[in-house]
Amino acid sequence: MNAPLQNDTFLRACLRQATDYTPVWLMRQAGRYLPEYRETRGRAGSFMGLATNTDYATEVTLQPLERYPLDAAILFSDILTVPDAMGLGLSFAQGEGPRFAKQVRDEAAVAELAVPDMDKLRYVFDAVGSIRKALNGRVPLIGFSGSPWTLACYMVEGGGSDDYRHVKTLMYARPDLMHRILAINADAVATYLNAQIDAGAQAVMVFDSWGGVLADGAFQAFSLAYSRRVLSQLKTHANGQRVPSILFTKGGGLWLDEIADAGADVIGLDWTVNLGRARQQLQDRVALQGNLDPNVLFAPPEAIRAQARAVLDSFGPPQGPEGRMGGHIFNLGHGISQFTPPEHVSALIDEVHRHSRAMRVR
Amino acid sequence: MNAPLQNDTFLRACLRQATDYTPVWLMRQAGRYLPEYRETRGRAGSFMGLATNTDYATEVTLQPLERYPLDAAILFSDILTVPDAMGLGLSFAQGEGPRFAKQVRDEAAVAELAVPDMDKLRYVFDAVGSIRKALNGRVPLIGFSGSPWTLACYMVEGGGSDDYRHVKTLMYARPDLMHRILAINADAVATYLNAQIDAGAQAVMVFDSWGGVLADGAFQAFSLAYSRRVLSQLKTHANGQRVPSILFTKGGGLWLDEIADAGADVIGLDWTVNLGRARQQLQDRVALQGNLDPNVLFAPPEAIRAQARAVLDSFGPPQGPEGRMGGHIFNLGHGISQFTPPEHVSALIDEVHRHSRAMRVR
Repeated sequence: MNAPLQNDTFLRACLRQATDYTPVWLMRQAGRYLPEYRETRGRAGSFMGLATNTDYATEVTLQPLERYPLDAAILFSDILTVPDAMGLGLSFAQGEGPRFAKQVRDEAAVAELAVPDMDKLRYVFDAVGSIRKALNGRVPLIGFSGSPWTLACYMVEGGGSDDYRHVKTLMYARPDLMHRILAINADAVATYLNAQIDAGAQAVMVFDSWGGVLADGAFQAFSLAYSRRVLSQLKTHANGQRVPSILFTKGGGLWLDEIADAGADVIGLDWTVNLGRARQQLQDRVALQGNLDPNVLFAPPEAIRAQARAVLDSFGPPQGPEGRMGGHIFNLGHGISQFTPPEHVSALIDEVHRHSRAMRVR
Repeated sequence: MNAPLQNDTFLRACLRQATDYTPVWLMRQAGRYLPEYRETRGRAGSFMGLATNTDYATEVTLQPLERYPLDAAILFSDILTVPDAMGLGLSFAQGEGPRFAKQVRDEAAVAELAVPDMDKLRYVFDAVGSIRKALNGRVPLIGFSGSPWTLACYMVEGGGSDDYRHVKTLMYARPDLMHRILAINADAVATYLNAQIDAGAQAVMVFDSWGGVLADGAFQAFSLAYSRRVLSQLKTHANGQRVPSILFTKGGGLWLDEIADAGADVIGLDWTVNLGRARQQLQDRVALQGNLDPNVLFAPPEAIRAQARAVLDSFGPPQGPEGRMGGHIFNLGHGISQFTPPEHVSALIDEVHRHSRAMRVR
């Protein structure tokens, strides 16, 4: 039995309920910009050594919460755990991005794919349970996965890419195979996120990091349709509590209306989107999360504070019967850079809380 | 005195005049995917050796026109010639992107910048003259430059980047210095493009390759404002002929209305944009160029043809008093990949010409 939640601001904002201020958390908030993270990672030996060890994963998940008054924790893990559990062999070379030992580029490789046994991902669910216990009700815990399309990008390319040549070649040349991969991914991701919810995740986020590289038309058919398939299968409640879902498509600003209809409670936005215009366009039918350029955090604290206020002001004042409703969760528009000075994050969090409170009492 | 133009379809489409079919050319059409290009480059020894030699530049510019019935030629050069002429020392290491010997990151480095003496870029204007002569009126010749912002990205980063950390840090921390760089770049680019027009360029294109990495608000202030400053200084006529201008912002789909008001005759679009919706949104007040995903060219010819038709159909049928007006120039949404099979390009060009003629006689 987990401790009762002391700060539910994030969850309330996800559901567009009244809050006293705008909650804030940062994508990749437990990460390399923190010296304490680098210390733990050194002890763990490797990224996967860190992510697959319950104690380490718990330790690093809580590190940013010790430094900053963040309004949510996010499971320390990787977006690619699911294809790893499918047997593709995930690894992280020093200073490089993720790599898969096997690439999925032909009919035979696709035929071998299946929704993995969730026992292979037990380390993730164990971490979720351990983190919930360690959080002791301070703030909610967010679980997550890569989207079906984003997983497919890595599975076909075998790692990161700057042109997505292999995955797009498969998509344009053999759409039938691509749909098969995506259907399996979608069902695997849904099963995985539901197991995270069972283990204690209080919200879940789908990272469609590479949806924005697709052409108009292809995005809807190959990315969004399968994110929708995930979202439609998710548990909406656990222990009587609503479990909000967040869908973040980097570079998805041109498709906001369609993304907002995919079934998520919250839409994540990158910094190219005008937050106020997005809110108006979507008529407050979903909550919005974002969208500061992470590079703002390299500027001096006063400039960071000004940019944070600009984001809050762009979303605009809270509305609704209590004058406190808004449905904005402050975040970056992408993961925080490893080169970020940690003290700059303090200025950001402080300004978001301070200014958003001031917006409510005006 | 240059020969009279035999095929003015491209120029007419830029000005939204009637054409018998939709003209097509491809960004980076003279490039590594062509074996004859690789042969010439081997003889030249290096990329800059190729670009700075009038005979080589002429030879490679014409190579794709020998293979394919393209409707325009584009000067073989690089978008970074201007900062090179500013003394920053451009080079291309084997298999790597561009590098500058000097980086512009502080007040002292910015103070040294100035609009370069155009004599240092004479090799470009000589190439333009030589190519015009070699073309002998077959198709029009397009000149080009990087946009002020895109040049600044390379000048501050010292090369390519995946996070634009240095240039954005300067922008957020010292906007005054960034504006100074951009003002110099804008005046340099305008002078450079006008000299290309004087040398014989029949249209000019501004490549804002990295405008799309900016946050909403920052894009308008740091990229678009300076592209506008370039466009406002350009000669609109040469030898009594209109010289159309094209502005291409990769990732600029969210800002189409503002981009369309920047003063260019044609707006380049990448593949994330819905061409039909863009045309409707912009009310045919500019011509549109684009926007096939270059990765489509890895699919089999029949799939390429289907995707080409989809782009043409998305733009929609020609309109206007003669029933032939449209203002669409078919292109990719980014440069052609070096891995493209050359014979696939034949299928693309053929289908664009065939289908767009058919659309006009319906």
